[in-house]
This record gives sequence, structure tokens and C-alpha cells, in this order.
Amino acid sequence: MRTVRAEIAYDGSRFFGWQRQAGFDSVQQALEEAFFDLTGSPVTVHGSGRTDTGVHALRQVAHAHVDTRLDDDRLRHALNAHLGEGVIVRRLETCPADFHARFSARGKRYAYLVATTRFRPPFGQAYVHWDRAPLDLVAMRQAAAACEGRHDFRAFGNTGSPRKDTVRTVHHVRVLARRERLAIVVQGEGFLFNMVRIMAGTLLEVGRGHRPADCVSLALRSGTRTDAGATAPAQGLYLVRVLYDEPLFADEIQAPAGRFGTPGAFP
Amino acid sequence: MRTVRAEIAYDGSRFFGWQRQAGFDSVQQALEEAFFDLTGSPVTVHGSGRTDTGVHALRQVAHAHVDTRLDDDRLRHALNAHLGEGVIVRRLETCPADFHARFSARGKRYAYLVATTRFRPPFGQAYVHWDRAPLDLVAMRQAAAACEGRHDFRAFGNTGSPRKDTVRTVHHVRVLARRERLAIVVQGEGFLFNMVRIMAGTLLEVGRGHRPADCVSLALRSGTRTDAGATAPAQGLYLVRVLYDEPLFADEIQAPAGRFGTPGAFP
Repeated sequence: MRTVRAEIAYDGSRFFGWQRQAGFDSVQQALEEAFFDLTGSPVTVHGSGRTDTGVHALRQVAHAHVDTRLDDDRLRHALNAHLGEGVIVRRLETCPADFHARFSARGKRYAYLVATTRFRPPFGQAYVHWDRAPLDLVAMRQAAAACEGRHDFRAFGNTGSPRKDTVRTVHHVRVLARRERLAIVVQGEGFLFNMVRIMAGTLLEVGRGHRPADCVSLALRSGTRTDAGATAPAQGLYLVRVLYDEPLFADEIQAPAGRFGTPGAFP
Repeated sequence: MRTVRAEIAYDGSRFFGWQRQAGFDSVQQALEEAFFDLTGSPVTVHGSGRTDTGVHALRQVAHAHVDTRLDDDRLRHALNAHLGEGVIVRRLETCPADFHARFSARGKRYAYLVATTRFRPPFGQAYVHWDRAPLDLVAMRQAAAACEGRHDFRAFGNTGSPRKDTVRTVHHVRVLARRERLAIVVQGEGFLFNMVRIMAGTLLEVGRGHRPADCVSLALRSGTRTDAGATAPAQGLYLVRVLYDEPLFADEIQAPAGRFGTPGAFP
């Protein structure tokens, strides 16, 4: 028996989210079934956190306790051979038994991708959100800056799931624009349910001029959900990275970006 | 009443092909319904040719006779506002009444896109075919060259639909490779049903070493379907261009490539 951790990419449009639930295909279930096929015994895969239906991951991290003679590289190949479409194990390595994908994590980075073409893009509907209007990047960046820091993000949480502690630390929120693509990159210690999508939705409303740039400060002060914008659709959201105290994988530094079919076009 | 021609892009994974058929969403039907919404009378949209379910188009051409006061630019915008997801009118202009998208066409260019990553790409399954094996480009290019010219392509036609005249002229077949992407670009005067996909499938089998490079010449001589390779899956195929005697659209030369969400990543 040993503990392994894995870096996983998946197409959120092909699963009903990360977490296993009876009757719906989930990423966790796909991974657990692949482990079961290989080891012959039930394996629980622990992710760094859930992602919702439609939300993609470029580098989700998970760990599992497995009993197999396969070395790390063979195990990764065998898993990928058993996994169906839409999910891939990019890296896998044996790790200390006390590593926990969720509890050891120090933060996460998400990217929210938007196509800002004049017309709805005919391709890749599942991989990018479309927002036609010309967007005011200066205002969006002002609003983004107001999200940074340690705040009570109650106004940016899903109203359906009240939580006691709604204070979170956001490291940075960046609005990157290139041609007719826009990425809102959000990194923080942790997030409330739907928080990144509500932040993206709020920034897009600011960009369209439907809300003033200082609406973020107002929403943070008031704690009122309606002072923030709508929840942006899931298909634009990517879990880009899970942050730990040190790089997890031996080849982390040399690894080329954009391999394994990551959607280089978005953006 | 005037005749207009349009350049159309669509995501083949969202339609049951180009051609209208009862009970199935087709691109033709989507366009005809958008015209009907705008003009209030039935409009028949004539495409340059059909594409199958799953096959994409970057620049399909079609014409229609319409009765509307909207000028060309307004008509294009109104159509795009009425069209659902997955299809867009990139250009539209009034044209001579005797222009016919199909009968005026002089040829077509297709691209067949392949991801040659070691593992199945988790994203974009509907937009690219995956072929893991290392591919022998030299052999593929030899086989591609053998496809060029005027030949009886009986062996590269679907066995289910015998046609009297199976002689076609192929202008060129190019195998482009960049990083872990490969494009087989085929241009010709005309093609038998499934011909481009069978050519792509044959070249891929040559690339994998499953067939010798001279199998194309053999298949052209024998006229036997089994001497050519399997039909490559629809999702890799794009109608890239329909060729006419002269450029159709006034802005053809200046038009930037890759706009309107064309899948720049593939490749």
C-alpha cells in the first residue's frame, strides 16, 4: 500500500462535476473505476476540492492509497488506458503518506475565459463564455483590484448555501486581454461556493458598464448578494492550478505548457 | 427579390449535417428558419454541398433568393441574431441572380485535423481526431502525392453508394505537422461521398506503418475499397473553403483569419 498523488485534466462538459454521486458520471468516479480495474480493490480518490458540472480543470490534484506493483509511470499509463474520454492523468508520483490533496493545499488559481467576438463563436461553446459587448478593461481592472486581499466575501457566495465563515483571502485578480479573448485569473487561499463565477460575472457587468467599478467595494461592505453581479456560466471556468507549499511533481519546472490537448485557443 | 450569397461557419457536432431532414437539426434548416423569421416567407438556402453529421465548416458557401428591405450588412446581423448556437454567417452579399453556390463552384478544400499526443486529449473531442501512434510523415507524404491528379477514386468511395462516374481531380494533398498536431489538407474539383475521410484514414494507416506508402497507387489501380484504409471519424474534418472562379466577397483579401471563434488551436 502506498500513497500517490496525481495531476488531472478534464473537460467539465463531459461530467456532472468532480464529486461522485449515484447515477451521474463524475470525474472522481471515472478515476476510482480506473484504479479499481487496475488494482482489483476499491480505491477512494481524494481531490483538492470539487468542481461543478461544466467547470474544467487543467491541473486538478488528487491523492489515493493504492496497492499495486506498478511503478508510478506504468500506473499513470495504465490509468490513462482505462479512463474514458474527457479526463487524463497528466502526472502521478508516490508521495508521503500524510499528503492530502485538500488539507495540504494552500490555495487555488482559476481562470475564467471569455470570447469577446462581435458574434457568438460557432465553435467551442463548452469551453468559453461569450460576451459580445465591448468591455471597459480599465473599469474591470479597478473592480478586480478591489477583490484582492482579505475580505468577507458573503456577497460573492451562493445565497443557497449560507456558511458561517465567509472571510477569504484573494491573492490576486487579473484581467488579461488579447485580441478577442479575455481571461480573468483569480488566485486565492480558498473560495466560497460559486465565488469565482460570481466575481467573473460582476467584472463582466462592470466591463459592460452595467455596474460601476466601485460596486465590488460596495458589495464587500454590504455583504448583500444582489450588490454583486450574476453568476457567470460554468463553461468559462477552469481550475488552473492547486497551490502547495512546494512544487509537487519532480518535473514541475521543466514541464511544457499546453500539452495534452489543453485548449490553447481559449485563449 | 434579390439573390444573396453567404459564407457560413458551423460546428458539425451540433447538427445532423448540412442537409434539411425531418426530425433532425440541420444547418440548412437553421439558416432557413432564420431567413423565415426575418422575411416572413419561406426561403430555400442552397449550399455548395452537403456535410455529414459531425463535419465542421469554416467557410461553407450558400445562396438564397430573399425578399427583404434590409441591406446586406443588416441582413447578416439580423440572421446572426436569429441563429442559435453553433452556426454563424461570416459574410453576406448581394450577388448576380445566376450565381449558384453548388453549380458555380470549381472545387473545395478540406482539412482533416489530428492530435498526435501520447494520450487522448481531454478537451475538444468534437473538434479533432486523436491518433496516438508516432506517424511516419515521409511515408504519409508519399501516399498523399499519389492521391494527386485525375484518377478513378472508386476505392476511396463509400461502398454503400455506387456511382457511375468515380473519376475525380484532386489538386493537392498536403500533410502539415506542427508540434503534436497534424493537418491533412485536400483540395480538389470534387469528391465522392466520404472520399476525404477515406483518404485521411488511409494516410493515417500509412503513417502508422499498417499499410505501405504505395497502397494508394495500388488502390487507385485496383478500384477495390478494401485496398484503401478505414473512413476516418467525422469530427476531424473541416470544409475549409469552396473555390469559385474569382473571390466572392468584396473583403475577401483583407479578411483576417481565425476570427469568429474558428478553432485556432486545432491546429
